[in-house]
Amino acid sequence: MFWLFRMPEPAAKVTVMSNSSIPDIVIGRLPIYLRALNHMIQEGKEYTSSHELGGRLGISSAQIRKDLSHFGEFGKQGTGYNLAYLSEQIRHILHVDHQWPVAVVGVGDLGHAIAHYRGFASRGFRVACLFDNNSDVIGEKIAGLSVLPMEQMSTEIQRQGVQVAMIAVPAEAAQLVANQLVQAGVKAILNYAPITLAVPPGVHVQYIDPVVHLQRMTYYLKP
Amino acid sequence: MFWLFRMPEPAAKVTVMSNSSIPDIVIGRLPIYLRALNHMIQEGKEYTSSHELGGRLGISSAQIRKDLSHFGEFGKQGTGYNLAYLSEQIRHILHVDHQWPVAVVGVGDLGHAIAHYRGFASRGFRVACLFDNNSDVIGEKIAGLSVLPMEQMSTEIQRQGVQVAMIAVPAEAAQLVANQLVQAGVKAILNYAPITLAVPPGVHVQYIDPVVHLQRMTYYLKP
Repeated sequence: MFWLFRMPEPAAKVTVMSNSSIPDIVIGRLPIYLRALNHMIQEGKEYTSSHELGGRLGISSAQIRKDLSHFGEFGKQGTGYNLAYLSEQIRHILHVDHQWPVAVVGVGDLGHAIAHYRGFASRGFRVACLFDNNSDVIGEKIAGLSVLPMEQMSTEIQRQGVQVAMIAVPAEAAQLVANQLVQAGVKAILNYAPITLAVPPGVHVQYIDPVVHLQRMTYYLKP
Repeated sequence: MFWLFRMPEPAAKVTVMSNSSIPDIVIGRLPIYLRALNHMIQEGKEYTSSHELGGRLGISSAQIRKDLSHFGEFGKQGTGYNLAYLSEQIRHILHVDHQWPVAVVGVGDLGHAIAHYRGFASRGFRVACLFDNNSDVIGEKIAGLSVLPMEQMSTEIQRQGVQVAMIAVPAEAAQLVANQLVQAGVKAILNYAPITLAVPPGVHVQYIDPVVHLQRMTYYLKP
C-alpha cells in the first residue's frame, strides 16, 4: 500500500485562536516539536510517529498526540505523521509561516552575537533593527544594519511594525528598556538580562537563562 | 500563632539519587522553581505557597506539590514553604550548593558575553577556562582568564576537573568540539550552536535556542 504515503494529506482543521483555552504549556512544546521535525526532515526522513518523536524528546507519545489533538488531526493510523505537512501546520499555528521583524536592544557582545545569529531566518524571524545608547556603537554596521540610538527606537519600531524584541542590555537597564518597548507597541519580549521584567497584561515575556539549563544537568552529576 | 513561622524547619528527608526514577521533566522544573523562589527572597518575602509559586510560573499548584514530593516534605499545612529553606534544599538536590567550574569553548561575541555574564556565581557556576582556535583571541584576558588554544583543552579540563562546558562555536565546529569535550571527561554540555549534538550515553546536553522562545510568543500575536 505504498501509494498511501504519496497521497496528498487531507486538510486538517487547524483552528488558531489567539485567546484560546489551550494551555500555555502545550504551546510551549510546539516549537520543540517543530525543531525536532525539521531535524528529521534535514536527515531525509519523510514520516515520523508520536513514538519516534517522543523518544527523541523524552516526552511520552500519548502527550504528543494529546498536544497535537488540540489543533486538529495530523497523523494517520498506521502511517504516522508526514513531516513536511506537520511542520508546515505547526509553523502556521505558531504564526511563523512568515518572518517577524525583530528589534534588538543592546549591541554589546551578546547583541552582536544575536545580530549575526544564522538560526532566525528559516524559523520565522529576521533582525530588523538594532539599538544602543553607547555612542561608540551607534552608527556601526552589523549584519547589514546600522545601530540606531535609543531615541529613535520608538519611531523605528512603529515605522516597521515591530511586535517582537530581544533585550540584551545590562540587568540594571532592562526594565526601562522593556517599558519603552511596550510603549512603542512591542507585544513579545525575549529577555537575556538576568532579571524578571514587569510588563502589562497582553505583553509576553520569555527568558534566556543559561543557568536553568546548567542546573538541570548538574542534578545528574557527581559533585 | 505567629511563633510557628519562626520555628526551625524540620529536617526534610532529601534523597538525592543520580540514577533516580524521577522523570527528567520534573528535574527540569526544579531550576525554574529555584529561580522564582530566589526572586521572592530578593523581594523580601519569607514564605510562599504552591498556589503563589504556581501563579507566578503558570504551573498548577498540584503539579508543584507533586514535583516537590519526589524529594521530601518541604511545606507545612497552613504556613506553606519557608523560602530560604526550600531554596537551600533545591540547590542541594540540583548539586548547586557549591560552584561547578565551567569550560567555555568559542570566544567570539557570544563567548565574550558568557565570560562576562554575572548570573553564574550565585547560582552554582563559575567560568573556569576559555578556549578558542583563533590566534587573534588566544592569550586575550577576559574576565580575568586567558583564552587558551584548543590544543590545551583536554589537559586543562582534566587538570581542573571540569565536568560542565558551554559550546559557543559556529555550528560546523560544534560536534567536533563536543567530541573533544566528552573525551576530556565533560559530562554536561550547554550548546549555543544551532545544531543537535550526538553524545554517548551518560553525557547530558541542553540547548540554548532563542527561536523556541520567540515562537512560543508569536502564537499569541496577530501577524
